[in-house]
Amino acid sequence: MTDCQGDGEGASTPMELYERLGAQGDKVRSLKSAKAEKAEVDAAVQLLLKLKIDYKQMMGQDYKAGCPPSEEAAAPDNGPAAEGDEDTVDPWNVSTTNAKGVDYEKLIVKFGSSKIDKELVDRIEKVCGQKPHRFLRRGVFFSHRDMHQVLDAYEKHKSFYLYTGRGPSSEAMHVGHLIPFIFTKWLQDVFDIPLVIQLTDDEKYLWKDLTVEECHRFAIENAKDIIACGFDLNKTFIFSDLDYMGASPEFYRNVVKIQKHVTFNQVKGIFGFTDSDCIGKISFPAIQAAPSFSNSFPQIFGSRSDIQCLIPCAIDQDPYFRMTRDVAPRIGYPKPALLHSTFFPALQGAQTKMSASDANSSIFLTDTPKQIKNKINKHAFSGGKDTVEEHRKYGGNPDVDVSFMYLTFFLEDDEQLEKIRQVREEIGPQTRSD
Amino acid sequence: MTDCQGDGEGASTPMELYERLGAQGDKVRSLKSAKAEKAEVDAAVQLLLKLKIDYKQMMGQDYKAGCPPSEEAAAPDNGPAAEGDEDTVDPWNVSTTNAKGVDYEKLIVKFGSSKIDKELVDRIEKVCGQKPHRFLRRGVFFSHRDMHQVLDAYEKHKSFYLYTGRGPSSEAMHVGHLIPFIFTKWLQDVFDIPLVIQLTDDEKYLWKDLTVEECHRFAIENAKDIIACGFDLNKTFIFSDLDYMGASPEFYRNVVKIQKHVTFNQVKGIFGFTDSDCIGKISFPAIQAAPSFSNSFPQIFGSRSDIQCLIPCAIDQDPYFRMTRDVAPRIGYPKPALLHSTFFPALQGAQTKMSASDANSSIFLTDTPKQIKNKINKHAFSGGKDTVEEHRKYGGNPDVDVSFMYLTFFLEDDEQLEKIRQVREEIGPQTRSD
Repeated sequence: MTDCQGDGEGASTPMELYERLGAQGDKVRSLKSAKAEKAEVDAAVQLLLKLKIDYKQMMGQDYKAGCPPSEEAAAPDNGPAAEGDEDTVDPWNVSTTNAKGVDYEKLIVKFGSSKIDKELVDRIEKVCGQKPHRFLRRGVFFSHRDMHQVLDAYEKHKSFYLYTGRGPSSEAMHVGHLIPFIFTKWLQDVFDIPLVIQLTDDEKYLWKDLTVEECHRFAIENAKDIIACGFDLNKTFIFSDLDYMGASPEFYRNVVKIQKHVTFNQVKGIFGFTDSDCIGKISFPAIQAAPSFSNSFPQIFGSRSDIQCLIPCAIDQDPYFRMTRDVAPRIGYPKPALLHSTFFPALQGAQTKMSASDANSSIFLTDTPKQIKNKINKHAFSGGKDTVEEHRKYGGNPDVDVSFMYLTFFLEDDEQLEKIRQVREEIGPQTRSD
Repeated sequence: MTDCQGDGEGASTPMELYERLGAQGDKVRSLKSAKAEKAEVDAAVQLLLKLKIDYKQMMGQDYKAGCPPSEEAAAPDNGPAAEGDEDTVDPWNVSTTNAKGVDYEKLIVKFGSSKIDKELVDRIEKVCGQKPHRFLRRGVFFSHRDMHQVLDAYEKHKSFYLYTGRGPSSEAMHVGHLIPFIFTKWLQDVFDIPLVIQLTDDEKYLWKDLTVEECHRFAIENAKDIIACGFDLNKTFIFSDLDYMGASPEFYRNVVKIQKHVTFNQVKGIFGFTDSDCIGKISFPAIQAAPSFSNSFPQIFGSRSDIQCLIPCAIDQDPYFRMTRDVAPRIGYPKPALLHSTFFPALQGAQTKMSASDANSSIFLTDTPKQIKNKINKHAFSGGKDTVEEHRKYGGNPDVDVSFMYLTFFLEDDEQLEKIRQVREEIGPQTRSD
């Protein structure tokens, strides 16, 4: 059961929390051995669980009796993140201590991007002549770079193309992976433009303990799920890096051009690479950058290198494209524009994004309806209060309720969503048992 | 005129030499202004020129009046070379202070390779059934790795393939560039085996101030000169990296495998890269390594990855293949074997190798016989004495005479070569005028 709040209840340091956990564990054991009343034992257990969750939120790892927290373990392990920053957002780590999720307003300031405000959403509606996608209406896509420029050009009949991608680290994709694809499909539909989808199987080989063959197989499997999103077959090019690098001299030429214009110092600053990283990781960012330039795809754009690229992606991918935008003018290409999405929350709460490597945090596209129901009931953090009584008294909090957050992503009907929000706020989610 | 020896004549430090140069310059000026006898002025000028050459040899840069030598300028600028080492040998720099050229015996110890001794030359003769190539007879190919293993396998009817290459940094190749190709052609002829030739136009783009298009054009132009060496058309594959990387997924897969197994620390140690180097340079060594593995060429070897590779190359390329041999067993491939050649001396002497970027140091394949004659007469260091009288008295020194060295590379007839050596030793080269 995960119906509890993560407010820390006064424990200000990891060590204080660790000590309170030890004491609470002792209390539970003594109550049980003394055969105390069930309600009393249950309340003690609930507090113990709550403290454990607080501990995991604070430390990023499970509480273990006998293993006091070390200073090192508490320190964020991502090089480039500023000290004291409570949110970690880079292509390999997304986490925050806030149950509402990452502070996206802060991220816009930190990354130097622009907010997708009402004016921009209205403009997109006007230019494409369609009701904005729910991801725009609800701020799932919340940040951008140069979107106004893309629309200016489009109004002058200068078209653009879309580029998004996926790192195929496992056979099964989860629902979180669908977010950029669902939105990209909508963009392709309303603007009627070409789309390229990069599957970075080479990246996954470099970063994970997998063989080249496994990564390539995952790319093929994931491509099937991506195709199922319903892209325009005549205007969509899905490729595996391991295949396409060896099939397009034009693509490789752009990779080399980018690699000539980015130093190790730069990727160290942007991605936090160290001297112990393999040279494949160090040079990989150029491979994710290259599809941003239209002449990487002569089969689609001929030799034209001036067609603007628009990249819908989760904001953790922005470091790649900050680098790309820095290089672009130096090699004579237009900077790609971007639309950034928020993260899709893990079942356990918006402190981390859904991750395929943690099966309990994820709803996979291969899960049956029954499995999904069980996962939601068992693991989905709901923001409920510590006891049913309290919960009934104070109501629920849709801002931290994962099931409700999922509805904001997937329920199209705004009115119905608003109704559910009100119901949740008033009476809270149903209490559930493990 | 460069007929002089570079023995330093007692000046043991750059500063001493700098001061002697200043004094000698003063002497020349005062003799001239005093209208001294021509012979006396000429002798003083000749000594001045000799000191200038000694200075350049010691400092790696021209003497400039008013610019005393600094400690820094005298330090070798290649990271990996050991301090106090008088020879610099890496893929981008070859130089020594010794007029006889690099100390190759020392290099064998430093690089940990094996000497090509008489026993190995005799064995090659026995296995291939042909008189050894003059490059073997005369120690032009002087060092190897695992050549006995290649011959062991060949005797058991397990064949191998050849891999060599060229960095196409200019349109015209010079005669020094031909050395590995001439020898590789002989190996292909006597062993009747496949050969792959890599043109690293991507490397030249990364290292030089050239466009991708220029480097690719140089690759095509150089390929013509290479083809003219007369390789077996049915067993030779010449490729530009810029083309082949984008044409062979198998090649790219090997590149990525190598890139996963080499860290920045390693390439820093081997090649002296720094944090300011571009990520293309840092990851390039994997691209020069990949042709060492037979499954990089499925069009030749199918999916077989177990065919041994033999690489004839100048010894400055060995760092790439030390790295390759380190990686090979970790990715399940056999280590490539190597045959290392000495450097082809610049016209100015064996202190540096012939370099296409210095037109006066090089005899190009496009030079006319008349141009070649002029270059030899004007620029070729001959090891003559300071005056015709001295030269007649003491004789020449074929060990430092560049024209004679060239004959050791190109004159097939051993007897004739020996005769010329004796003549040179006795009466020295003809004295020549500028």
